[in-house]
Amino acid sequence: MKFGVIGTGMVGSTLAGKLISLGHEVKMGSRSASNEKAAAWVKQAGKGASQGTFADAAAFGEVVFVCTKGDVTLDAVRLAGIDNLKGKVVIDVSNPLDFSKGMPPSMIPELTNTNSLGEELQKLIPASYVVKTLNTINCEVMVNPSMLQDDSEILISGNDSNAKSKVIGILRSFGWKNPIDLGDITTARGTEMYIALWMRLMGVLGTAQFNFKIVK
Amino acid sequence: MKFGVIGTGMVGSTLAGKLISLGHEVKMGSRSASNEKAAAWVKQAGKGASQGTFADAAAFGEVVFVCTKGDVTLDAVRLAGIDNLKGKVVIDVSNPLDFSKGMPPSMIPELTNTNSLGEELQKLIPASYVVKTLNTINCEVMVNPSMLQDDSEILISGNDSNAKSKVIGILRSFGWKNPIDLGDITTARGTEMYIALWMRLMGVLGTAQFNFKIVK
Repeated sequence: MKFGVIGTGMVGSTLAGKLISLGHEVKMGSRSASNEKAAAWVKQAGKGASQGTFADAAAFGEVVFVCTKGDVTLDAVRLAGIDNLKGKVVIDVSNPLDFSKGMPPSMIPELTNTNSLGEELQKLIPASYVVKTLNTINCEVMVNPSMLQDDSEILISGNDSNAKSKVIGILRSFGWKNPIDLGDITTARGTEMYIALWMRLMGVLGTAQFNFKIVK
Repeated sequence: MKFGVIGTGMVGSTLAGKLISLGHEVKMGSRSASNEKAAAWVKQAGKGASQGTFADAAAFGEVVFVCTKGDVTLDAVRLAGIDNLKGKVVIDVSNPLDFSKGMPPSMIPELTNTNSLGEELQKLIPASYVVKTLNTINCEVMVNPSMLQDDSEILISGNDSNAKSKVIGILRSFGWKNPIDLGDITTARGTEMYIALWMRLMGVLGTAQFNFKIVK
Protein backbone atom coordinates (compact mmCIF):
# COMPACT_ATOMS: atom_id res chain seq x y z
CA MET A 1 0.00 0.00 0.00
CA LYS A 2 1.05 3.62 -0.42
CA PHE A 3 1.48 5.71 2.72
CA GLY A 4 2.17 9.38 3.28
CA VAL A 5 3.98 10.37 6.46
CA ILE A 6 3.68 14.01 7.52
CA GLY A 7 6.65 14.80 9.74
CA THR A 8 10.35 13.90 9.72
CA GLY A 9 11.02 13.53 13.44
CA MET A 10 11.65 10.36 15.45
CA VAL A 11 8.00 9.33 15.29
CA GLY A 12 7.66 9.90 11.56
CA SER A 13 10.88 8.14 10.63
CA THR A 14 10.20 5.20 12.95
CA LEU A 15 6.69 4.68 11.57
CA ALA A 16 7.87 5.21 8.00
CA GLY A 17 10.68 2.70 8.48
CA LYS A 18 8.26 0.11 9.84
CA LEU A 19 5.93 0.60 6.88
CA ILE A 20 8.83 0.09 4.46
CA SER A 21 9.89 -3.06 6.32
CA LEU A 22 6.34 -4.36 5.85
CA GLY A 23 6.68 -3.90 2.08
CA HIS A 24 4.76 -0.65 1.68
CA GLU A 25 5.72 2.44 -0.30
CA VAL A 26 6.17 5.54 1.84
CA LYS A 27 6.60 9.20 0.96
CA MET A 28 7.84 11.29 3.85
CA GLY A 29 6.66 14.88 3.68
CA SER A 30 8.17 18.02 5.14
CA ARG A 31 7.98 21.78 4.62
CA SER A 32 10.63 21.60 1.92
CA ALA A 33 10.89 18.88 -0.72
CA SER A 34 14.61 18.51 -0.01
CA ASN A 35 14.50 18.30 3.79
CA GLU A 36 17.76 16.79 5.05
CA LYS A 37 16.21 14.54 7.69
CA ALA A 38 13.81 13.11 5.12
CA ALA A 39 16.68 12.62 2.66
CA ALA A 40 18.68 10.75 5.30
CA TRP A 41 15.67 8.58 6.04
CA VAL A 42 15.10 7.80 2.35
CA LYS A 43 18.73 6.80 1.91
CA GLN A 44 18.63 4.53 4.94
CA ALA A 45 15.17 3.06 4.33
CA GLY A 46 15.89 1.98 0.73
CA LYS A 47 13.37 0.50 -1.68
CA GLY A 48 9.91 2.07 -1.55
CA ALA A 49 11.03 5.17 0.34
CA SER A 50 10.72 8.66 -1.10
CA GLN A 51 10.39 12.23 0.08
CA GLY A 52 8.54 15.39 -0.87
CA THR A 53 6.58 18.28 0.51
CA PHE A 54 3.72 17.80 2.96
CA ALA A 55 1.43 18.10 -0.08
CA ASP A 56 3.39 15.50 -2.04
CA ALA A 57 3.15 13.04 0.83
CA ALA A 58 -0.57 13.69 1.31
CA ALA A 59 -1.28 13.22 -2.40
CA PHE A 60 0.85 10.05 -2.55
CA GLY A 61 -0.62 8.21 0.41
CA GLU A 62 -3.76 6.08 0.32
CA VAL A 63 -3.44 6.39 4.10
CA VAL A 64 -1.60 9.31 5.68
CA PHE A 65 0.10 9.39 9.08
CA VAL A 66 0.34 12.74 10.87
CA CYS A 67 3.47 12.63 13.04
CA THR A 68 4.28 16.28 13.66
CA LYS A 69 4.58 17.97 17.02
CA GLY A 70 1.08 18.77 18.21
CA ASP A 71 1.53 22.53 18.13
CA VAL A 72 2.12 22.43 14.35
CA THR A 73 -0.19 19.56 13.36
CA LEU A 74 -3.00 21.74 12.06
CA ASP A 75 -0.62 24.02 10.14
CA ALA A 76 1.18 21.05 8.59
CA VAL A 77 -2.10 19.52 7.47
CA ARG A 78 -3.20 22.85 5.98
CA LEU A 79 0.07 22.88 4.03
CA ALA A 80 -0.50 19.26 3.02
CA GLY A 81 -3.71 20.38 1.38
CA ILE A 82 -7.20 19.53 2.48
CA ASP A 83 -8.06 18.27 -1.03
CA ASN A 84 -5.05 15.96 -1.09
CA LEU A 85 -6.49 14.16 1.94
CA LYS A 86 -10.10 13.97 0.74
CA GLY A 87 -11.69 10.55 1.23
CA LYS A 88 -8.54 9.20 2.89
CA VAL A 89 -7.83 7.72 6.30
CA VAL A 90 -5.63 10.13 8.26
CA ILE A 91 -3.95 8.58 11.27
CA ASP A 92 -3.17 11.24 13.87
CA VAL A 93 -0.34 10.24 16.18
CA SER A 94 0.34 13.74 17.52
CA ASN A 95 -0.36 15.16 20.97
CA PRO A 96 -1.22 18.81 21.74
CA LEU A 97 1.68 19.39 24.10
CA ASP A 98 2.64 22.87 25.23
CA PHE A 99 6.34 23.12 26.03
CA SER A 100 6.21 26.91 26.46
CA LYS A 101 5.68 26.69 30.23
CA GLY A 102 8.66 24.39 30.81
CA MET A 103 8.97 20.69 31.55
CA PRO A 104 7.05 18.53 31.84
CA PRO A 105 4.80 19.98 29.13
CA SER A 106 1.17 20.84 29.74
CA MET A 107 -1.58 20.53 27.14
CA ILE A 108 -2.33 23.37 24.71
CA PRO A 109 -5.31 24.90 26.58
CA GLU A 110 -7.70 25.24 23.64
CA LEU A 111 -6.98 21.65 22.53
CA THR A 112 -7.71 19.82 25.75
CA ASN A 113 -10.37 18.90 28.29
CA THR A 114 -13.49 19.93 26.31
CA ASN A 115 -11.69 19.62 22.99
CA SER A 116 -8.81 17.66 21.49
CA LEU A 117 -6.33 17.90 18.67
CA GLY A 118 -7.99 14.88 17.08
CA GLU A 119 -11.31 16.72 16.97
CA GLU A 120 -9.80 19.92 15.58
CA LEU A 121 -8.03 17.93 12.88
CA GLN A 122 -11.28 16.19 11.93
CA LYS A 123 -12.99 19.61 11.71
CA LEU A 124 -10.17 20.87 9.47
CA ILE A 125 -10.52 17.92 7.06
CA PRO A 126 -14.21 16.97 7.23
CA ALA A 127 -14.03 14.90 4.03
CA SER A 128 -11.24 12.73 5.49
CA TYR A 129 -11.46 10.01 8.13
CA VAL A 130 -9.33 10.94 11.12
CA VAL A 131 -8.33 8.10 13.41
CA LYS A 132 -6.35 8.93 16.52
CA THR A 133 -4.09 6.17 17.72
CA LEU A 134 -0.53 5.31 18.78
CA ASN A 135 -0.31 8.65 20.66
CA THR A 136 -0.10 6.96 24.07
CA ILE A 137 3.32 5.36 23.58
CA ASN A 138 6.88 5.97 22.55
CA CYS A 139 7.56 5.45 18.83
CA GLU A 140 9.72 2.39 19.35
CA VAL A 141 6.85 0.69 21.14
CA MET A 142 4.41 1.86 18.44
CA VAL A 143 6.06 -0.32 15.82
CA ASN A 144 7.25 -3.15 18.05
CA PRO A 145 4.80 -3.85 20.88
CA SER A 146 6.43 -7.20 21.57
CA MET A 147 9.54 -5.39 22.82
CA LEU A 148 7.59 -5.07 26.09
CA GLN A 149 7.43 -8.01 28.46
CA ASP A 150 3.68 -8.49 28.21
CA ASP A 151 0.81 -7.59 25.92
CA SER A 152 -0.39 -4.01 26.38
CA GLU A 153 -3.18 -1.81 25.07
CA ILE A 154 -3.46 0.30 21.96
CA LEU A 155 -6.45 2.64 21.77
CA ILE A 156 -8.21 4.10 18.75
CA SER A 157 -10.66 6.98 18.36
CA GLY A 158 -12.53 8.01 15.24
CA ASN A 159 -15.93 8.70 13.76
CA ASP A 160 -15.86 6.21 10.89
CA SER A 161 -16.07 2.45 11.43
CA ASN A 162 -14.56 1.50 8.10
CA ALA A 163 -11.62 3.80 8.68
CA LYS A 164 -11.10 2.31 12.13
CA SER A 165 -11.20 -1.23 10.69
CA LYS A 166 -8.52 -0.25 8.19
CA VAL A 167 -6.39 1.23 10.98
CA ILE A 168 -6.86 -1.84 13.13
CA GLY A 169 -5.48 -3.88 10.24
CA ILE A 170 -2.41 -1.65 10.11
CA LEU A 171 -1.97 -1.86 13.89
CA ARG A 172 -2.19 -5.64 13.73
CA SER A 173 0.53 -5.65 11.09
CA PHE A 174 2.68 -3.72 13.59
CA GLY A 175 2.09 -6.48 16.15
CA TRP A 176 -0.81 -5.04 18.18
CA LYS A 177 -3.11 -7.91 19.07
CA ASN A 178 -6.31 -6.34 20.32
CA PRO A 179 -6.77 -2.65 19.62
CA ILE A 180 -9.49 -1.09 21.78
CA ASP A 181 -11.96 1.10 19.91
CA LEU A 182 -12.81 3.86 22.40
CA GLY A 183 -15.50 5.41 20.21
CA ASP A 184 -15.78 8.60 18.21
CA ILE A 185 -13.07 11.21 17.80
CA THR A 186 -14.07 13.00 21.03
CA THR A 187 -12.55 10.06 22.91
CA ALA A 188 -9.18 11.38 21.74
CA ARG A 189 -9.52 13.80 24.68
CA GLY A 190 -8.86 10.86 26.95
CA THR A 191 -5.83 9.46 25.17
CA GLU A 192 -4.29 12.91 24.71
CA MET A 193 -4.84 13.89 28.37
CA TYR A 194 -3.29 10.59 29.45
CA ILE A 195 0.03 12.02 28.26
CA ALA A 196 0.09 14.17 31.41
CA LEU A 197 0.31 10.93 33.38
CA TRP A 198 2.57 9.23 30.83
CA MET A 199 5.15 12.02 31.24
CA ARG A 200 5.26 11.53 35.00
CA LEU A 201 5.40 7.75 34.69
CA MET A 202 8.29 8.08 32.24
CA GLY A 203 10.15 10.14 34.82
CA VAL A 204 9.63 7.60 37.59
CA LEU A 205 10.15 4.47 35.48
CA GLY A 206 13.29 5.93 33.90
CA THR A 207 12.29 4.82 30.43
CA ALA A 208 9.92 5.85 27.64
CA GLN A 209 9.53 2.25 26.59
CA PHE A 210 6.48 1.20 28.53
CA ASN A 211 2.77 0.96 28.13
CA PHE A 212 -0.21 -0.12 30.20
CA LYS A 213 -2.32 -3.22 30.22
CA ILE A 214 -5.93 -3.18 31.39
CA VAL A 215 -6.56 -5.51 34.32
CA LYS A 216 -10.17 -6.41 35.00
CA MET B 1 -5.39 4.30 64.36
CA LYS B 2 -8.00 7.06 64.23
CA PHE B 3 -9.22 8.16 60.81
CA GLY B 4 -11.49 10.96 59.69
CA VAL B 5 -13.41 10.49 56.47
CA ILE B 6 -14.79 13.63 54.83
CA GLY B 7 -17.71 12.59 52.64
CA THR B 8 -20.57 10.12 52.94
CA GLY B 9 -20.85 8.88 49.36
CA MET B 10 -19.88 5.51 47.91
CA VAL B 11 -16.18 6.29 48.10
CA GLY B 12 -16.29 7.56 51.68
CA SER B 13 -18.36 4.69 53.01
CA THR B 14 -16.34 2.06 51.16
CA LEU B 15 -13.04 3.42 52.47
CA ALA B 16 -14.45 3.94 55.95
CA GLY B 17 -15.78 0.38 55.99
CA LYS B 18 -12.40 -0.99 54.96
CA LEU B 19 -10.67 0.97 57.71
CA ILE B 20 -13.11 -0.39 60.30
CA SER B 21 -12.54 -3.94 59.02
CA LEU B 22 -8.81 -3.39 59.57
CA GLY B 23 -9.49 -2.50 63.22
CA HIS B 24 -9.25 1.26 63.00
CA GLU B 25 -11.59 3.87 64.49
CA VAL B 26 -13.34 6.01 61.91
CA LYS B 27 -15.42 9.15 62.18
CA MET B 28 -17.37 9.94 59.04
CA GLY B 29 -17.99 13.65 58.58
CA SER B 30 -20.68 15.46 56.70
CA ARG B 31 -22.24 18.91 56.59
CA SER B 32 -24.64 18.00 59.39
CA ALA B 33 -23.72 15.93 62.44
CA SER B 34 -26.84 13.81 61.96
CA ASN B 35 -26.48 13.05 58.25
CA GLU B 36 -28.63 10.02 57.38
CA LYS B 37 -26.15 8.33 55.09
CA ALA B 38 -23.46 8.60 57.75
CA ALA B 39 -25.88 7.27 60.37
CA ALA B 40 -26.71 4.29 58.16
CA TRP B 41 -23.01 3.64 57.65
CA VAL B 42 -22.27 3.83 61.40
CA LYS B 43 -25.05 1.37 62.13
CA GLN B 44 -23.83 -1.07 59.53
CA ALA B 45 -20.09 -0.67 60.22
CA GLY B 46 -20.39 -1.34 63.95
CA LYS B 47 -17.56 -1.09 66.46
CA GLY B 48 -15.19 1.82 65.94
CA ALA B 49 -17.53 3.72 63.63
CA SER B 50 -18.91 7.14 64.47
CA GLN B 51 -20.21 10.21 62.72
CA GLY B 52 -20.07 13.98 63.07
CA THR B 53 -19.56 17.17 61.15
CA PHE B 54 -16.71 17.67 58.70
CA ALA B 55 -14.93 19.47 61.55
CA ASP B 56 -15.57 16.61 64.00
CA ALA B 57 -14.11 14.10 61.54
CA ALA B 58 -11.10 16.30 60.82
CA ALA B 59 -10.40 16.82 64.51
CA PHE B 60 -10.84 13.11 65.26
CA GLY B 61 -8.55 11.67 62.59
CA GLU B 62 -4.82 11.27 62.89
CA VAL B 63 -5.09 10.76 59.14
CA VAL B 64 -8.01 12.23 57.18
CA PHE B 65 -9.42 10.96 53.90
CA VAL B 66 -11.11 13.48 51.59
CA CYS B 67 -13.75 11.61 49.59
CA THR B 68 -16.11 14.32 48.42
CA LYS B 69 -17.02 15.09 44.85
CA GLY B 70 -14.25 17.22 43.39
CA ASP B 71 -16.36 20.31 42.90
CA VAL B 72 -16.98 20.57 46.65
CA THR B 73 -13.66 19.28 47.99
CA LEU B 74 -12.20 22.69 48.82
CA ASP B 75 -15.44 23.90 50.44
CA ALA B 76 -15.73 20.75 52.52
CA VAL B 77 -12.16 21.09 53.73
CA ARG B 78 -12.75 24.75 54.62
CA LEU B 79 -15.74 23.61 56.69
CA ALA B 80 -13.63 20.85 58.22
CA GLY B 81 -11.34 23.56 59.52
CA ILE B 82 -7.82 24.23 58.45
CA ASP B 83 -6.61 24.10 62.07
CA ASN B 84 -8.24 20.72 62.63
CA LEU B 85 -6.02 19.31 59.87
CA LYS B 86 -2.78 20.99 60.94
CA GLY B 87 0.21 18.65 60.94
CA LYS B 88 -1.89 15.77 59.67
CA VAL B 89 -1.72 13.58 56.59
CA VAL B 90 -4.70 14.36 54.35
CA ILE B 91 -5.37 11.73 51.69
CA ASP B 92 -7.18 13.29 48.75
CA VAL B 93 -9.15 10.73 46.74
CA SER B 94 -11.31 13.27 44.88
CA ASN B 95 -11.20 14.27 41.22
CA PRO B 96 -12.06 17.74 39.83
CA LEU B 97 -14.81 16.53 37.53
CA ASP B 98 -17.23 18.95 35.89
CA PHE B 99 -20.60 17.34 35.21
CA SER B 100 -22.19 20.65 34.18
CA LYS B 101 -21.48 20.08 30.46
CA GLY B 102 -23.06 16.62 30.38
CA MET B 103 -21.59 13.13 30.27
CA PRO B 104 -18.88 12.07 30.24
CA PRO B 105 -17.68 14.80 32.59
CA SER B 106 -14.82 17.12 31.71
CA MET B 107 -12.34 18.52 34.22
CA ILE B 108 -13.04 21.74 36.12
CA PRO B 109 -11.04 24.14 33.91
CA GLU B 110 -9.19 26.01 36.65
CA LEU B 111 -8.23 22.74 38.36
CA THR B 112 -6.61 20.92 35.46
CA ASN B 113 -3.72 20.93 33.00
CA THR B 114 -1.50 23.58 34.64
CA ASN B 115 -3.09 23.01 38.04
CA SER B 116 -4.82 20.23 39.95
CA LEU B 117 -7.23 19.77 42.79
CA GLY B 118 -4.44 18.15 44.78
CA GLU B 119 -2.34 21.28 44.47
CA GLU B 120 -5.19 23.62 45.37
CA LEU B 121 -5.95 21.51 48.42
CA GLN B 122 -2.31 21.63 49.50
CA LYS B 123 -2.37 25.45 49.11
CA LEU B 124 -5.51 25.63 51.23
CA ILE B 125 -3.96 23.61 54.06
CA PRO B 126 -0.24 24.42 53.89
CA ALA B 127 0.42 23.05 57.38
CA SER B 128 -1.01 19.66 56.41
CA TYR B 129 0.51 16.94 54.25
CA VAL B 130 -1.67 16.30 51.25
CA VAL B 131 -1.18 12.99 49.50
CA LYS B 132 -3.18 12.30 46.36
CA THR B 133 -3.91 8.66 45.73
CA LEU B 134 -6.63 6.10 44.96
CA ASN B 135 -8.28 8.61 42.58
CA THR B 136 -7.57 6.48 39.50
CA ILE B 137 -9.88 3.59 40.38
CA ASN B 138 -13.37 2.67 41.43
CA CYS B 139 -13.89 2.52 45.21
CA GLU B 140 -14.38 -1.23 45.28
CA VAL B 141 -10.99 -1.70 43.69
CA MET B 142 -9.46 0.87 46.07
CA VAL B 143 -10.03 -1.36 49.07
CA ASN B 144 -9.71 -4.73 47.37
CA PRO B 145 -7.11 -4.69 44.61
CA SER B 146 -7.01 -8.48 44.52
CA MET B 147 -10.55 -8.51 43.12
CA LEU B 148 -8.83 -7.87 39.78
CA GLN B 149 -7.24 -10.75 37.91
CA ASP B 150 -3.71 -9.42 38.08
CA ASP B 151 -1.67 -6.95 40.08
CA SER B 152 -2.20 -3.35 39.00
CA GLU B 153 -0.79 0.04 39.83
CA ILE B 154 -1.62 2.53 42.53
CA LEU B 155 -0.04 5.97 42.22
CA ILE B 156 0.75 8.55 44.88
CA SER B 157 1.59 12.24 44.71
CA GLY B 158 2.66 14.50 47.53
CA ASN B 159 5.32 16.92 48.74
CA ASP B 160 6.29 15.17 51.97
CA SER B 161 8.22 11.89 52.02
CA ASN B 162 7.19 10.92 55.54
CA ALA B 163 3.54 11.49 54.72
CA LYS B 164 3.88 9.39 51.59
CA SER B 165 5.54 6.58 53.57
CA LYS B 166 2.61 6.63 55.97
CA VAL B 167 0.14 6.49 53.08
CA ILE B 168 2.05 3.66 51.43
CA GLY B 169 1.64 1.71 54.66
CA ILE B 170 -2.11 2.29 54.56
CA LEU B 171 -2.26 1.29 50.90
CA ARG B 172 -0.35 -1.90 51.65
CA SER B 173 -2.86 -2.71 54.37
CA PHE B 174 -5.56 -2.42 51.67
CA GLY B 175 -3.68 -4.98 49.58
CA TRP B 176 -1.69 -2.74 47.22
CA LYS B 177 1.71 -4.35 46.72
CA ASN B 178 3.89 -1.71 45.08
CA PRO B 179 2.58 1.85 45.18
CA ILE B 180 4.37 4.09 42.70
CA ASP B 181 5.49 7.46 44.09
CA LEU B 182 5.09 9.85 41.14
CA GLY B 183 6.67 12.79 42.93
CA ASP B 184 5.40 16.04 44.38
CA ILE B 185 1.78 17.15 44.48
CA THR B 186 1.97 18.64 40.97
CA THR B 187 2.05 15.07 39.65
CA ALA B 188 -1.60 14.86 40.71
CA ARG B 189 -2.30 16.66 37.42
CA GLY B 190 -1.45 13.42 35.67
CA THR B 191 -3.58 11.11 37.79
CA GLU B 192 -6.53 13.50 37.74
CA MET B 193 -6.37 14.00 33.96
CA TYR B 194 -6.18 10.23 33.49
CA ILE B 195 -9.83 10.16 34.55
CA ALA B 196 -10.74 11.50 31.11
CA LEU B 197 -9.39 8.25 29.70
CA TRP B 198 -10.72 6.14 32.58
CA MET B 199 -14.27 7.34 31.83
CA ARG B 200 -14.00 6.26 28.20
CA LEU B 201 -12.41 2.95 29.13
CA MET B 202 -15.21 2.30 31.60
CA GLY B 203 -17.72 2.83 28.79
CA VAL B 204 -15.97 0.41 26.46
CA LEU B 205 -15.09 -2.21 29.07
CA GLY B 206 -18.61 -2.13 30.51
CA THR B 207 -17.35 -2.07 34.08
CA ALA B 208 -15.83 0.35 36.56
CA GLN B 209 -13.87 -2.44 38.15
CA PHE B 210 -10.61 -2.28 36.28
CA ASN B 211 -7.21 -0.73 36.57
CA PHE B 212 -4.00 -0.65 34.59
CA LYS B 213 -0.71 -2.40 34.99
CA ILE B 214 2.52 -0.92 33.70
CA VAL B 215 4.27 -3.15 31.18
CA LYS B 216 7.92 -2.38 30.49
